[in-house]
Amino acid sequence: MTTKLSGDAKGVYVIAATPFHDDGRIDFDSIDRLVDFYLRCGVHGMTVLGVMGEFQKLSESETLDVAKRFIAAARGKIQTVVGVSNPGTTLLVKAARASMEAGAAGVMVMPIQGLKTDEGVLSYMRGVLKALGPSVPVCVQDYPQLSGVYFSPGCFLQMVDEFPQIVMFKHEEAPGLRKLSAIRRACDGSARRYISILCGNGGIHLPQEYRRGADGAMTGFAFPDMMVRLHALFAAGKTEEAEDLYDLYLPVLRHELQPGIGLALRKEILRRRGAIASSAVRAPGPKLDADDVAELDRLLARLERKTGKPIGSV
Amino acid sequence: MTTKLSGDAKGVYVIAATPFHDDGRIDFDSIDRLVDFYLRCGVHGMTVLGVMGEFQKLSESETLDVAKRFIAAARGKIQTVVGVSNPGTTLLVKAARASMEAGAAGVMVMPIQGLKTDEGVLSYMRGVLKALGPSVPVCVQDYPQLSGVYFSPGCFLQMVDEFPQIVMFKHEEAPGLRKLSAIRRACDGSARRYISILCGNGGIHLPQEYRRGADGAMTGFAFPDMMVRLHALFAAGKTEEAEDLYDLYLPVLRHELQPGIGLALRKEILRRRGAIASSAVRAPGPKLDADDVAELDRLLARLERKTGKPIGSV
Amino acid sequence: MTTKLSGDAKGVYVIAATPFHDDGRIDFDSIDRLVDFYLRCGVHGMTVLGVMGEFQKLSESETLDVAKRFIAAARGKIQTVVGVSNPGTTLLVKAARASMEAGAAGVMVMPIQGLKTDEGVLSYMRGVLKALGPSVPVCVQDYPQLSGVYFSPGCFLQMVDEFPQIVMFKHEEAPGLRKLSAIRRACDGSARRYISILCGNGGIHLPQEYRRGADGAMTGFAFPDMMVRLHALFAAGKTEEAEDLYDLYLPVLRHELQPGIGLALRKEILRRRGAIASSAVRAPGPKLDADDVAELDRLLARLERKTGKPIGSV
Amino acid sequence: MTTKLSGDAKGVYVIAATPFHDDGRIDFDSIDRLVDFYLRCGVHGMTVLGVMGEFQKLSESETLDVAKRFIAAARGKIQTVVGVSNPGTTLLVKAARASMEAGAAGVMVMPIQGLKTDEGVLSYMRGVLKALGPSVPVCVQDYPQLSGVYFSPGCFLQMVDEFPQIVMFKHEEAPGLRKLSAIRRACDGSARRYISILCGNGGIHLPQEYRRGADGAMTGFAFPDMMVRLHALFAAGKTEEAEDLYDLYLPVLRHELQPGIGLALRKEILRRRGAIASSAVRAPGPKLDADDVAELDRLLARLERKTGKPIGSV
Repeated sequence: MTTKLSGDAKGVYVIAATPFHDDGRIDFDSIDRLVDFYLRCGVHGMTVLGVMGEFQKLSESETLDVAKRFIAAARGKIQTVVGVSNPGTTLLVKAARASMEAGAAGVMVMPIQGLKTDEGVLSYMRGVLKALGPSVPVCVQDYPQLSGVYFSPGCFLQMVDEFPQIVMFKHEEAPGLRKLSAIRRACDGSARRYISILCGNGGIHLPQEYRRGADGAMTGFAFPDMMVRLHALFAAGKTEEAEDLYDLYLPVLRHELQPGIGLALRKEILRRRGAIASSAVRAPGPKLDADDVAELDRLLARLERKTGKPIGSV
Repeated sequence: MTTKLSGDAKGVYVIAATPFHDDGRIDFDSIDRLVDFYLRCGVHGMTVLGVMGEFQKLSESETLDVAKRFIAAARGKIQTVVGVSNPGTTLLVKAARASMEAGAAGVMVMPIQGLKTDEGVLSYMRGVLKALGPSVPVCVQDYPQLSGVYFSPGCFLQMVDEFPQIVMFKHEEAPGLRKLSAIRRACDGSARRYISILCGNGGIHLPQEYRRGADGAMTGFAFPDMMVRLHALFAAGKTEEAEDLYDLYLPVLRHELQPGIGLALRKEILRRRGAIASSAVRAPGPKLDADDVAELDRLLARLERKTGKPIGSV
Repeated sequence: MTTKLSGDAKGVYVIAATPFHDDGRIDFDSIDRLVDFYLRCGVHGMTVLGVMGEFQKLSESETLDVAKRFIAAARGKIQTVVGVSNPGTTLLVKAARASMEAGAAGVMVMPIQGLKTDEGVLSYMRGVLKALGPSVPVCVQDYPQLSGVYFSPGCFLQMVDEFPQIVMFKHEEAPGLRKLSAIRRACDGSARRYISILCGNGGIHLPQEYRRGADGAMTGFAFPDMMVRLHALFAAGKTEEAEDLYDLYLPVLRHELQPGIGLALRKEILRRRGAIASSAVRAPGPKLDADDVAELDRLLARLERKTGKPIGSV
Repeated sequence: MTTKLSGDAKGVYVIAATPFHDDGRIDFDSIDRLVDFYLRCGVHGMTVLGVMGEFQKLSESETLDVAKRFIAAARGKIQTVVGVSNPGTTLLVKAARASMEAGAAGVMVMPIQGLKTDEGVLSYMRGVLKALGPSVPVCVQDYPQLSGVYFSPGCFLQMVDEFPQIVMFKHEEAPGLRKLSAIRRACDGSARRYISILCGNGGIHLPQEYRRGADGAMTGFAFPDMMVRLHALFAAGKTEEAEDLYDLYLPVLRHELQPGIGLALRKEILRRRGAIASSAVRAPGPKLDADDVAELDRLLARLERKTGKPIGSV
């Protein structure tokens, strides 16, 4: 059991992959191994059952089993946020309650597909947040490239003002650097209470986001250890050193960011790093072909050469 | 237990609503009542757990319970097709097998969101159909307005040629009258085996579709009894009489077709006709306001006046 | 020269087709003939160079020539609104000024593709309206099915409050009956100045829209004479009689509403009614095939039978 | 006058910005200056009036003036490809003919918005290519992130087989590395004639694309001199050295790639490099705010430090 998620959360809340066996069954042993890997990387939290966790391909009972195993494996050392987005509010609330009972620190909610305009988003979120009740801390995920749902900074601030349980903003609209700045300035702990802003999108603008006031990363890049060091360097004010570190990984990071195939690449890197046993993605999911593998080989070889570290080491 | 779905299916395979209590729980008694209503309307089959069946808001176990109750209530009198579309192929196959074991005549599959190009659709459908195996009859749903997935007539014909278990095409691309004609001519029972083409989209072009060779309707319009009579009239060659009948209902039909709010209107009409106990839609779903109700009152009053029949009568 | 467009505009502002010769050249003589037809139909205004006017396939000089010819042909008898939507604000303003100099009563502006959230739409419209200046009356077109841009009633009201030159709302979000009611109530001439609301979308919900407070139609349905009579009946409080009239035309109206092919159908009906010489649509535009023509023949024959009037008569 | 565009085109065909004065007028002197800059960078060709050339905000006459000025400024030293995509085929053909007469080497065509399925794309392209005739060399632009039009490799190969004037593929579907490989293998000069494949998307995967058989870049990255050196290094087989060079620029490249704001960033960098007088983007276009400028300052300072070269030097 950890503390509940709060607005002062900082650091790397890694988006966890869901490991499968080659035949598509959930690989629970690899969940333990993956959490151990994340802990060795020094992450500050985990987010499970996000998009990269293939939550849409799990049944209701599987999602709960996966969430519980992750939370148990973390042994209270770090917070776990559980993704509970769902087309139906009843199922969303059920998943949220079960997750909290299992020891989650909070839940992540993305406005569902089909919502239009700030008014539509607000109306939806009010329904969800009232149904969740005040005791469940919520991270609002802003990922319009996937959901097709766009909302303005003003719309998010309205949610914040109405619902104290919103404590975190997962920022991943792209381009979105100005949105981050706008929300940061509005939720500065003075004019309005402070909200934790963690950044997704594979970390493709992470140094710029730190400089604009982000509190950390919430993304699944297969080198969370780099992100942890980046966070420490920014925290220590060593911004140029931080960006130097980041730039070493940028070629792999931007390669892994590709939609679709990116998940297969990420899982393959995690496999090579010893974090999971199989890089399998549930069907209909991407599989790497010979070109893809050779390309990844070259990019990882370059990374090892530039960092002077084998990719397996943390 | 009924026969399996086949390419010579004809008539009205009504898209069944899923009845809920006002608090959102599934109303199983109303499933029985609704099936009885459909049987009294004379429908030739039912399709359950389609979009209008709110399948996305049901848990895995709920979907199976709903499918079983519908099939049981039909007492073998009509075929039941079960919608099994799912982001994950494993869950799709599991639902399909369970449905067939419960007595379904076949399953309905819609290519999942995010597929691009005919090659992408074909690749996806090959994966699904191989996983389903040859013993499960399949209706392919073509509903790009919802899925965002467009495929050409040639792409569908390729599926038909590769997979004998594809026996039905649920036509609802809009505009799509030419697509219907193209597929009808290609699957005419001579150049290529005959495929049943049933039309969705609320029936908004149903007479034109019949004239272009459709075999019937697969839609949830709240007056399936009208569609059954329309089908009989077209079958008897009384095409103008058929269209005269249809035109009486067109004002209500086009009103009910509105995306979103249409589901609430449809369930409210079914409730007024005595087919279900509550018009509740699971959250986040549309609810009728006073304007909507007054508007519906007027439209239904006009329909009663024009047809000379109370809407409650079948 | 007519008066300028104002918030008390009422009636049928027909969306004018742009007539072409079979080879794609603009048919200016048919513009005169079409305007004469519209005048005989009794329309209260015209809107030229809208989507159905194929404005996107005209060069800058062609658009101005077309607008001028329409305005000249109207001989000051009715107002002409000119569509000036454009990806570039400079070109938009240039077209608006030229149109007003040529005698337009006002211009119609649709927020450009790619705008996201109410804040984004407001920001764009502020830029356009400031550049247009206070002397150009503006009709805001709300057509998200085409533009992909959704804005809330509150967003539109904000525009109204900031810019007195906004005098008309072209309502065609679908479904959108509630939006119409919301804007009507907010712009009732008491709490806020009265705004003219004219409805598009082919008129598919026109009687319902009148009952919810619409001031008329702004759509290109090929029987504007019916819409004019509908307007008069609603104005006279003969609402059921109005709807009876409308229902006679609904089968053709809903057929003509099909995106894409609908433009070819509409122009073919206008040709058959003697309003234009050729039904040609500029490439890449839809052309009717033999099935389409036979289908239209039947629908129009049914209309003649039901109304007892040849379609050529006005 | 240069030779016509052909399938053996290789190198960097830079996407040219269209320079404006601060008040939005076209800055023709800066066109001369920009071409001079590109020539000093050593580019192998130019592509004008692409998306980054803001072609949608230019009038018909402006587009021709801009194309002519670019072609004249190139003084026959490099080929110029002119973007002629247009909602209307007549205007497209007119622009293409005028461009070729003015000395263009070929034209670039993107399938228009709204096309669905491979069959739809093929049908459209057949109409355009027949209207253009066999004497106009064509580069097909594949940019679905903007157009919403997706087509498969097989669809493109069909175009190639039907129309010898298609000589180039502008590859920018993302993710799209496999599509590049598929088309490269199919158009290898043996099984099928060789087609030049140039890559867009800001160059975000350029080294990987070279390794997969791309012939060069067609993108507007503000450091075309880097891309020219990259091309030379790949041509010389110095692939690791090439990628080392590329990685130095990747932080700026990925920053400039942001949709929307990216154009303002790119023009500002070009201004700072002395290539154009003003970084103005035509309204409604993005403008840099103080945060954006400070961010760009830092990124460019880092680039200067890493490369040891002032950004103004070529």
